[in-house]
Amino acid sequence: MRQSELFTKTRKTAPKDEVAKNAQLLIRAGYIHKEMAGVYSYLPLGLRVLENIKRVVREEMNAVGAQEIIMTSLQRKELWEITDRWDDQKVDVWFKSELKSGGEVGFGWSHEEPITDMMKQFIASYRDLPAYVYQFQTKLRNELRAKSGIMRGKEFVMKDMYSYSTTEEKHREFYDKAIAAYLKVFERLSLGDRTFLTFASGGAFTQFSHEFQTVSDAGEDTVYLHRGKKIAINKEVLTDEVMKQLDVERGGLEEVKAIEVGNIFSFGSVKSEQLGLMFKDENGKEIPVILGSYGIGITRLMGTVVEVLSDEKGIVWPEEIAPFQVHLVSITGGNEDVMKEADRVYDLLKENGIEVLYDDRDVRAGEKFADSDLIGIPTRLVVSEKTMSEGGIERVDRASGTTGFVSDSEVVQALQK
Amino acid sequence: MRQSELFTKTRKTAPKDEVAKNAQLLIRAGYIHKEMAGVYSYLPLGLRVLENIKRVVREEMNAVGAQEIIMTSLQRKELWEITDRWDDQKVDVWFKSELKSGGEVGFGWSHEEPITDMMKQFIASYRDLPAYVYQFQTKLRNELRAKSGIMRGKEFVMKDMYSYSTTEEKHREFYDKAIAAYLKVFERLSLGDRTFLTFASGGAFTQFSHEFQTVSDAGEDTVYLHRGKKIAINKEVLTDEVMKQLDVERGGLEEVKAIEVGNIFSFGSVKSEQLGLMFKDENGKEIPVILGSYGIGITRLMGTVVEVLSDEKGIVWPEEIAPFQVHLVSITGGNEDVMKEADRVYDLLKENGIEVLYDDRDVRAGEKFADSDLIGIPTRLVVSEKTMSEGGIERVDRASGTTGFVSDSEVVQALQK
Repeated sequence: MRQSELFTKTRKTAPKDEVAKNAQLLIRAGYIHKEMAGVYSYLPLGLRVLENIKRVVREEMNAVGAQEIIMTSLQRKELWEITDRWDDQKVDVWFKSELKSGGEVGFGWSHEEPITDMMKQFIASYRDLPAYVYQFQTKLRNELRAKSGIMRGKEFVMKDMYSYSTTEEKHREFYDKAIAAYLKVFERLSLGDRTFLTFASGGAFTQFSHEFQTVSDAGEDTVYLHRGKKIAINKEVLTDEVMKQLDVERGGLEEVKAIEVGNIFSFGSVKSEQLGLMFKDENGKEIPVILGSYGIGITRLMGTVVEVLSDEKGIVWPEEIAPFQVHLVSITGGNEDVMKEADRVYDLLKENGIEVLYDDRDVRAGEKFADSDLIGIPTRLVVSEKTMSEGGIERVDRASGTTGFVSDSEVVQALQK
Repeated sequence: MRQSELFTKTRKTAPKDEVAKNAQLLIRAGYIHKEMAGVYSYLPLGLRVLENIKRVVREEMNAVGAQEIIMTSLQRKELWEITDRWDDQKVDVWFKSELKSGGEVGFGWSHEEPITDMMKQFIASYRDLPAYVYQFQTKLRNELRAKSGIMRGKEFVMKDMYSYSTTEEKHREFYDKAIAAYLKVFERLSLGDRTFLTFASGGAFTQFSHEFQTVSDAGEDTVYLHRGKKIAINKEVLTDEVMKQLDVERGGLEEVKAIEVGNIFSFGSVKSEQLGLMFKDENGKEIPVILGSYGIGITRLMGTVVEVLSDEKGIVWPEEIAPFQVHLVSITGGNEDVMKEADRVYDLLKENGIEVLYDDRDVRAGEKFADSDLIGIPTRLVVSEKTMSEGGIERVDRASGTTGFVSDSEVVQALQK
C-alpha cells in the first residue's frame, strides 16, 4: 500500500491523558485511536497487527483440534443467575442495560456460561466428547480504572477457548497440550524468552490455575521467577508448601513485574453440574462434563509486544505480526529516475506476494526515516540516488539497525513466504 | 474437515419460538445457535459463511479504495449529544449503561458520529481528502420485536463505510462507484437478479437516499419494482412527481415485499459542521467535509441468501460464501475398501487446496444425504461401492440436483480456485 494513500498520519505527541507507553506509541504511529479511557479503535495498521495476532493464535488453536465460533455480547440474566455470577456484588465488571422487550440484559465480560449452556445442544453421549471450541470475542468490562493503554481496557479482544472432556485424565492431557500451544504462540510473537508459565491459585477443583506472565515493568502483576526452571509463581500462592512442591527455594526466586498475557483454568465439573451439561458414559450413566477454560488477551498481547520490544525510536514488530513485511522508503529529492526505480521495486515486491508499505510521500528524508522507525516494520528498503549509484537497494533491519546492500533477487528470496 | 469431528449436529426441528425460515434452517443445520430473541451465536459452519461474506464485501470495498478499521462498541454520550442523537426520544434503539468511573455510556448502534469525530485527527487540508473508511462492526440495537431470525436482531454484524470528500461533485462520483460495488457484491452472492437499487427518502441534503432491496416474501419492506429499468421505489417516496422524475408510470410498477440488504446515504456537510470536521481548501478557506454513509447488513445478507435460495430440502449456498466447496460423502456399508477410497479422495481434495467437509460418520446413507441437502454445500461428491464399481466419483449439484460421474482429475480441475 502507498503511504500517501493511508489516511492515518504519525503524530509528534500522544494525547496528554495517555500515560501508558504502548498506547502513546501506537497512537503516535497511527495504529489506534483513543475513544475514551480504556477504549480504543484500531486503524488500518492496527487492525492488520490485530488480525495477524489472531492468525497466529488461530493456527495454534486449530492445531490442537479446537473449532472456532463466535458467541454474542448480549447475555441472559437468567443464565448467569444459575451460576451466581449476575449479582454486581459477585462480579463487579458487568455492564447491564434494560431490554425494550422487558427485563435486563448483560454485556459479555466472559463466556463460560453461554458456551457451556450452548454445548448442551450438542453433547449427550461420551461419543460427542471431547469438544474444544474457541472464539475471538470483544469483551466489555466496566473497569473502574483503565490506565494501561490497550493492556487493560473496558473493551478489548480476547481469545477464549473451552474444553469439554469425559474424564479428569483426558482433561489433563488437553490442558497440557494447551500449555504447549500457548508457549508456541508467545514464541512466535518474540515474547518466548520473557514469558513464564506461572502457578496461580486454582479454586475449588484444582490446586493451581496457570497464567502466562511476560516480564515487564509495565505489568500490573508481581510474580516470582525461577529462570532455571522457566516457571514463575504468583504472589497469591507463594507459600513454603508450594515452593517445596515445585522444588524451588525462596532464594532462587526473582521478584518481577509482569503482564498476564494468558491464563488457563480447570473448572472440573462444577459449572457443568450447575448448568446441567451431562453426558451418558458407555454404561448409560449420566456424568457431568469436565470443563477447562483457556484465555489469551489479543489486544493485550499487542500492547505487550509494544511495551517490551520497542526502543527509543519507536515500535519494533516481530515478523509474524508486523502490519507489513517491508517498509519501502524512497528518497527522491525530486529526481524522477529515483521515483521510477522506487515504483519498480514496489511493483516487484507486490508481484512476489510481499506485503509492503511504500512511503512515496513528498516529505524530507529525515521525516521519512523517523516515521519508519516509529511505525516499526521489520525490514526497511531504501531507494535513493545513492543506492542507485551503488547498484542496489539499501536494507535496514529495524530491530538491530544493521544495514546492507541487496539486489532485487536477494530481497525477493529473503522475504517471500 | 471430518464431519465426525465437527461438534455441531443437525437437528430435526428448530426451537418452537423460532418463526423465521432463515433461522429455522440455520439452526437445524448447525450454523447458528439462538441465545435469545434476535441474538444468535455463529457456530463453525456459520462463522465460515460469515467470514466468506465479509471477504467478498472486503474485496469490493478495497477495490474502490476504502481502508478497513474497527471502531468500538462503547460510545461517548457527549459526542452523540452534539448531533442530538443521544436522547431516547430521538433514537429509540440505544442500549445504555452506567460507567463505574462515572457517567453514562452507550453501545454502538451506528458509527457515523465516532468515525467522523475521529477523522478530525487526520483531515486538515484538501490534501488529506478524499478518505474512505469502513469496518465490520457488531451493532447492538434495543429492538422491541425481533422475529425475522438473523435478518433483524438486537446484535448483528454490519459493514459500514464512510466517505469524506471535498466537493459535492467528488462525493457523487464516489457514491456512484459505491453503488456499482454494492451491485457487484449482491451479484457475487447470487442475489443479483432479485436485488434492486431502490429510491428512498433522502433527508435534508439530497432528495433521495438509496436502498438495495432483495425481493422476498420474508421482507419487512414494501417496494415498487420497475423490472425493465432494474430499479425500485420505496413506498415512502412513491409520488407522481418522483415517478415522473424517474420516468416510470404507476401501471408499470409491481408491488413486492423485499429485504433491505444495503443502504447508502449522503449527509452533505450537516454532520461535519455539527462535529467540526473542516478542511482548508487551496486558498486556505475552511470548508466542512462532505460525508456519505454506506451500509451492508452482513448477517442479514446471510439470512437473505437462506430465505431466497433454499428449497424444500434445505439450504443452497452460492459458491462464493459456502462454508466448504465440497461435501464428500462416503457410503461404506462397513466396506473398508470404500472407506479407504473415500479417505483417498479426501486427501486428494485437501492436497489441491479444495475446501472439503468429509462426512465420514458411521450413519445410514439416507441420513447422510438428508443432512447434506440441509447443510447445502454446492457440490456433493459420493464415494460408495456403486461409484467404485463404475470407476469414478458421483458428483451431485446441490442447486439443480443434476448428477454425473467424474474422475479425480475432473474433480480437481473443476474445483481448484
